[in-house]
Amino acid sequence: MKTAPTAAQAPTPDTVTFATRRSIEQVEEGAELAPRFDANGLITCVTTEADTGEVLMLGYMNEEALQRTIATGEAHYWSRSREVLWHKGATSGLVQRVVEMRIDDDQDAVWLKVSVAGSGASCHVGYHSCFYRKVPVAGDRTHSDKLEFVEREKRFDPVAVYGDAPNPTKL
Amino acid sequence: MKTAPTAAQAPTPDTVTFATRRSIEQVEEGAELAPRFDANGLITCVTTEADTGEVLMLGYMNEEALQRTIATGEAHYWSRSREVLWHKGATSGLVQRVVEMRIDDDQDAVWLKVSVAGSGASCHVGYHSCFYRKVPVAGDRTHSDKLEFVEREKRFDPVAVYGDAPNPTKL
Repeated sequence: MKTAPTAAQAPTPDTVTFATRRSIEQVEEGAELAPRFDANGLITCVTTEADTGEVLMLGYMNEEALQRTIATGEAHYWSRSREVLWHKGATSGLVQRVVEMRIDDDQDAVWLKVSVAGSGASCHVGYHSCFYRKVPVAGDRTHSDKLEFVEREKRFDPVAVYGDAPNPTKL
Repeated sequence: MKTAPTAAQAPTPDTVTFATRRSIEQVEEGAELAPRFDANGLITCVTTEADTGEVLMLGYMNEEALQRTIATGEAHYWSRSREVLWHKGATSGLVQRVVEMRIDDDQDAVWLKVSVAGSGASCHVGYHSCFYRKVPVAGDRTHSDKLEFVEREKRFDPVAVYGDAPNPTKL
């Protein structure tokens, strides 16, 4: 005898399924989750801090990362530099709890509003946000065209947290 | 005789130059703008509404789009569907004025905080934000796994604004 699912049963990643993309109307105006993964099997994810609206990072998700994020309510990404599924915070403890997830018009990008554990940092360099520098535009460039640091102090010491793991930044 | 630049002389896109990427320290901790364009010549751009922090859209910029955005203070993108430089708002009138631009740790993504002209909409479907639908996660999925519309009404009629231009959404 089959039993109906109850609230106590957390969905597993296997139970998160995606609809087939059939029409522009379905994708843009419908209520079915039908994400579009690019040639590398990825969708783009922008992650903001739920409380402040600050953009913390831009990441990428493959199918499994998106399924696990939806199933568990904790942000999972695909690490393009390490080429592994990446449960954000597994190493640093700075887990991102998903407060809300949105998807865009053509369903090739998601927006996570998150609450970050611990020091609240999300950047591997040690800053709160990956976007810790301002680029002067238009008239402001007459004063200086140099990047300006908007965060003065790091939230954590990357060497203490990540040890000698390879830096993901590529030249 | 050369004259010194004055505030009245707006920089042209030609005068926006990018530094060569020499080291991880320079890219992550320095004050030089040294963006990294991907294999397709693009960097990712997340655009938020300056007043509310709402994510309006995710876009892409090639070198020229980034230069023009910096030089003019109005958002320019590379349209991947139309394969053209795209001065946002040129057709719809919904120009995005850049209030602040940020760049991320490895300089392969930018964040624009913008103020949008007219109805304030940024989505080609007619909504304020491209992210007009919520995806239920974790425990919320026990009620429904359908997308939920968080915007009830469109800000403009896409047919009236774009006419019979091809829809950029790809299946």
